[in-house]
Amino acid sequence: MYFQVLKETLVRHGFTFESETDTEVIPKLAKFVFDKANEEGDQTVTFSQVVLEVMRHLEGAYALIFKSRHYPNELIACKRGSPLLLGVKELNDDVCNGSAFHDAKFLSKNGNPKELFLSSDANAIIEHTKKVLVIEDGEVVHLKEGGVSILKFNNDKGRNGDSLSARPASVQRALSILEMEVEQINKGKYKHYMQKEIHEQPESLTTTMRGRLLRGGSCKAKTVLLGGLKDHLKTIRRSRRIVFIGCGTSYNAALAARPILEELSGVPVTMEIASDLLDRQGPIYREDTAVFVSQSGETADTLLALEYTLENGALCVGITNTVGSVIARNTHCGVHINAGCEIGVASTKAYTSQIVVMAMLALAIGGDTITKQERREAIIDGLFDLPNKIREVLKLDQEMKDLAKLLIAEQSLLVFGRGYNYATALEGALKVKEVALMHSEGILAGEMKHGPLALVDENLPIVVIATHDACFSKQQSVIQQLRARKGRLIVMCSKGDAASVCPGGGCRVIEVPQVEDCLQPVVNIVPFQLLAYHLTVLRGYNVDQPRNLAKSVTTQ
Amino acid sequence: MYFQVLKETLVRHGFTFESETDTEVIPKLAKFVFDKANEEGDQTVTFSQVVLEVMRHLEGAYALIFKSRHYPNELIACKRGSPLLLGVKELNDDVCNGSAFHDAKFLSKNGNPKELFLSSDANAIIEHTKKVLVIEDGEVVHLKEGGVSILKFNNDKGRNGDSLSARPASVQRALSILEMEVEQINKGKYKHYMQKEIHEQPESLTTTMRGRLLRGGSCKAKTVLLGGLKDHLKTIRRSRRIVFIGCGTSYNAALAARPILEELSGVPVTMEIASDLLDRQGPIYREDTAVFVSQSGETADTLLALEYTLENGALCVGITNTVGSVIARNTHCGVHINAGCEIGVASTKAYTSQIVVMAMLALAIGGDTITKQERREAIIDGLFDLPNKIREVLKLDQEMKDLAKLLIAEQSLLVFGRGYNYATALEGALKVKEVALMHSEGILAGEMKHGPLALVDENLPIVVIATHDACFSKQQSVIQQLRARKGRLIVMCSKGDAASVCPGGGCRVIEVPQVEDCLQPVVNIVPFQLLAYHLTVLRGYNVDQPRNLAKSVTTQ
Repeated sequence: MYFQVLKETLVRHGFTFESETDTEVIPKLAKFVFDKANEEGDQTVTFSQVVLEVMRHLEGAYALIFKSRHYPNELIACKRGSPLLLGVKELNDDVCNGSAFHDAKFLSKNGNPKELFLSSDANAIIEHTKKVLVIEDGEVVHLKEGGVSILKFNNDKGRNGDSLSARPASVQRALSILEMEVEQINKGKYKHYMQKEIHEQPESLTTTMRGRLLRGGSCKAKTVLLGGLKDHLKTIRRSRRIVFIGCGTSYNAALAARPILEELSGVPVTMEIASDLLDRQGPIYREDTAVFVSQSGETADTLLALEYTLENGALCVGITNTVGSVIARNTHCGVHINAGCEIGVASTKAYTSQIVVMAMLALAIGGDTITKQERREAIIDGLFDLPNKIREVLKLDQEMKDLAKLLIAEQSLLVFGRGYNYATALEGALKVKEVALMHSEGILAGEMKHGPLALVDENLPIVVIATHDACFSKQQSVIQQLRARKGRLIVMCSKGDAASVCPGGGCRVIEVPQVEDCLQPVVNIVPFQLLAYHLTVLRGYNVDQPRNLAKSVTTQ
Repeated sequence: MYFQVLKETLVRHGFTFESETDTEVIPKLAKFVFDKANEEGDQTVTFSQVVLEVMRHLEGAYALIFKSRHYPNELIACKRGSPLLLGVKELNDDVCNGSAFHDAKFLSKNGNPKELFLSSDANAIIEHTKKVLVIEDGEVVHLKEGGVSILKFNNDKGRNGDSLSARPASVQRALSILEMEVEQINKGKYKHYMQKEIHEQPESLTTTMRGRLLRGGSCKAKTVLLGGLKDHLKTIRRSRRIVFIGCGTSYNAALAARPILEELSGVPVTMEIASDLLDRQGPIYREDTAVFVSQSGETADTLLALEYTLENGALCVGITNTVGSVIARNTHCGVHINAGCEIGVASTKAYTSQIVVMAMLALAIGGDTITKQERREAIIDGLFDLPNKIREVLKLDQEMKDLAKLLIAEQSLLVFGRGYNYATALEGALKVKEVALMHSEGILAGEMKHGPLALVDENLPIVVIATHDACFSKQQSVIQQLRARKGRLIVMCSKGDAASVCPGGGCRVIEVPQVEDCLQPVVNIVPFQLLAYHLTVLRGYNVDQPRNLAKSVTTQ
C-alpha cells in the first residue's frame, strides 16, 4: 500500500496527528469525520459519505475495506491504484455471464442466497466463484442490507465544498468471468504450492513454448513465431536501445535473457529496476523499445514505469503471466508466458518461463540475419529439449535436501555467477533470502576481488556457478582463488566437469545437465529453487507465504 | 593474477599435473624445465633461459619474481598484463633523470652502493626512491652479481623451436621519476591510512575542484572547465548512449553520478561492471561514449573493457587518479580526479572525488542548455560549499564510533537507499564488507517488497538513507513499513528531519548536513566510511590491508 494522508487540510479541520503510521491514521480519520458530522448536527451522515470524505484526504495507491460499529451490517470497499476484485457466488448459480450488476440483492433472482468475496487477487476467489467484478479506481463498493451498490467517487468534485454534502451517483457494471480452473490452485500430491510449481516446470515450459517453435521442413529453417509481436519486430530491430524493466524475480529473468538478446539482435540492452527508473526519471525516447516483465501484470512500480514510458513515446512490450492484467492491456504488444497460475509467493515456474519467452523474443528479433542462423537453430533445438533437461535436474531433489540439512543453521550465503549465470546468482540468492529467511547475496564473480573476497573464510558457505560456457575458465580461476582462501565451496558445474572444477576434491559439487549456453540459467536455477524450498521447510518457515511478503507487489 | 598454464604442450613434454592451482604449478614447471635441460646435458642453461621457457607456457596476465637455489645471488622478474616497477635507489644519489639504465652495476658511478626494489605499485617504492623503471610486457629483469639487465621476451620467436636455445637481446631503458611526495604516504597524526584519507576529504575535494569551477562575473554565468574534455563535449552530447564502465567502488561512484548526468545531458546512461561487459561481449558502437572510472587507472577488467571499447570505435573518456596510468594514456580524453595518493585498500577519498568529477562532467556536458542554467548554478554553488559540509559531517566521528560499538558483534547488515543514494547504499555496504568483514548488503529500497523485506525482524540491523530529496516521501513509507515489521532501524536523514523520518522515536538517527540533491551522496558516504573504519578497528582487523584484498586489482 502506498499512499499519504494529506495532513494540511486535516490539521486545518482540527485533526491531530499522533506518532502513528499512515495506515494507523485511517481508522482515526474515519472516526474524526464521523464525529465531526455528528457534532455539526448531521445525524444522517451515511457510511459511504464518511468513506468518501476519508478518500478525499488520501493520495497515492490503496485498496481499503471499512467496517464500523456505527453502521452494523454494512461494509465498504474502495481503491485507487491497487487492484480489488469483488467475487459473486450464487448458490445454484444460474446468472449468465455479463449480466448487469447493480443494486442486486443478496438473494439472487431465483431466490438462492448469494455470497460475496473481496480480494486483491483472483487466486483467492477462484475456488469459490469465477464471477467477478473488477473494481475500478475511484469506485466505492457498498454492501448493505443484502444489497450491493457501487458509487463513483470523483476526487475533484468535492474539492471546493465538503464531500459530505455531495451524493455521488451509483454506477452500473457488468460481471466478468475468470479464465482460470480450480485445479490450477490445487496442490495435488505436493505439500506446498512452491514445491508443486518447482516440479511442474517441465510442463509449464512446454506450455510456454507450445505453438511458438516451428521445426522447419527439409529446406525450411527452424524458427520462432510470437503472434503478438510479429507486426512490431521491424520497429524493435531498429530501436536505439532495448530497455528491460521489471522488479525482483522478473528483473532477474530479464537479466538472464539479456546476453542472448544482445548477441542475436546487436541492439544494446539496458536493464532498469522499475522503481529506480522512476526515482531517477531516467531518459526514455521514441527510438527506445521498453520490455515490461511482470508475472502478475499488476506490479505497481512496473505499471508506473509503463505509464512513464508511454508518455515518453517508446514502444512498449509486455511479458506477463496474466491475460487481461493492466500491463498486458496497456502495452503496445507482448507475449503471454502461459506458465499457468502461480500461487507460491516465491516465483519459480514463472521465472523459467519468462527466460524462455525472452529467449524466443531474442530469436524473433534476430530472426532476419543469416550469419547467426546456425546459432539460432541450436537454441531452438535446445528449447525443444529443455523440458527433458528440467526433468533431469529435478532429480537433484534429494541431493538439495541433503545440502539444505548442512546449511540449516547458517546465517549467510554467497552465490557467485557471471555471464549468462549472473542472473542465476541473483535469483538463487533471492529465493533463499525470501523463503528461507537466510541472508544470501548474489554476487557477480568478476567483482569478487573488489570487496566480497574479504568475507571468505572457512565458515561462510559459498555457491559458485561454473557450468560450461565461454566464461568457464574465468570461473575456474575464481574457484582456485576461493579455495586458496579456504572458502567453503559448493560448485555447480556441468555433468562430467566435477574433476576439472574441483581438482583434488574437497568441494561439494552439484552436477547439472548441460544445455545451450543461453538456456543454461533455466536449468541452473532449479537446484536453487529446491535448496530454498527444503531449507525453508527444514527451518520451519511458511514456504508459500514468506514473512512480510505478498505475491504480487501491487503497491509501491 | 589471471593466467593459465598451457597444459597441452607441457603434457606432451612429459610434465605431469597434480591437483594444484596454476599458481602452485609455476615453481614445479620451472624445476621441470631446469631438470629437462640438465637431463639433455645442457649444464649451461641460464636462469633467464629457464624463466623464458616457463613464460612460454603461460597465457593471460601475471607479474612474477623467481629465485632459485640453483642460481644463488640471482633474481628474475617478469610480467605480462599486470604492472611491475623496478625502483632504483643510489645512496648519495646523483644520477640525473633520464639516465640510461643498462647493465648498471650495484655500485653506481660514484662508487656508492645501489638498492633495488620490485613492486606492482609506486606507493610501496616512493618512501625509498623516486627513480623507477616501468617494466613493459614481455620484459625480463635479471639481477645478477651486482648488475641489472633487461631482456625482451618475444612470445612468437620461440614457438617453433625451443626458447632454451634462443638468446634474447638485452634492451636499453631510461629511468623515470615518480611525481609523488613522501608526505602523501605518511599517516601524520592518524593511526591508519584509511582514517587519514577519510579525514582529508575536505582537502582532497578542494584539490579535485581547483581551477575547474568558474564563479562567473556580474553578468557571466557560473560554469565548469574541464580542460581535458573541452574538444570532445560536442561529440559526447551527440552520443546515442553514455556508458559508465568500472569495478567496485569506482562503479558505485559512477552510479551515484548517473542521475545528474542523465538529467543535465538528456543522454541515456548505461551502467556496466567491466567484467560483465567483457563476459557478455555487450554491444558497443561508434555512437557511444564510454567513460572508464578507475582510481589506479590500472584495474585489469576496466583496462580490458577499454581495449574492447576502442576496438568497437566508441569515444573513450578516462577518469583516474593516476597520471600516466594505462587508462589515462589509452583513452581519447579524460579528467584526472586529483585526490592525491590513496593508500588504504578501501577507497574513500577517491570515491568522493570521483563523484565530484563526474558531477562536473555532467555540468560540462549539459552546459549548453538555457532551461537548466539555474539548476547548474545551484550545483556549482553546492560544489563550492561541499568541503565545508564534509568538515561538518566528519564531526560525526564519535557518533559513528558509538554505533560501531553497538554493531560490533553483528553478522549481517542491510543498507537501503534509492535515487541519488542507491549508490550510497551499495558503497556503504561495500565499505563495511571489505574492511569490517561483516556481511553487509546494499539494497535498492524500491526492491524491498520483492524479497529483502522477508529478512526483517527485531534483530537484523538496517540502515535506511532518507536524506531530503524527491524520493523522500517514498523513503518515509519504506521506514514506516520496516518499523511495522519491528525492524531495527538506523536512519540517515537531513539535519532537522529526525522527527519526520522517525515519528515517535525509537530509531537511531544519523543527521547529516543537506546539500544539493545530486551532491548528497558525497556527504552521505562519510558516516559509512567512519562506521566501517571504527567497526574494523574495534573488531581487531587490519584496516589498511583487508583480508584477501589488494589495493588495485591489476589482475582479472
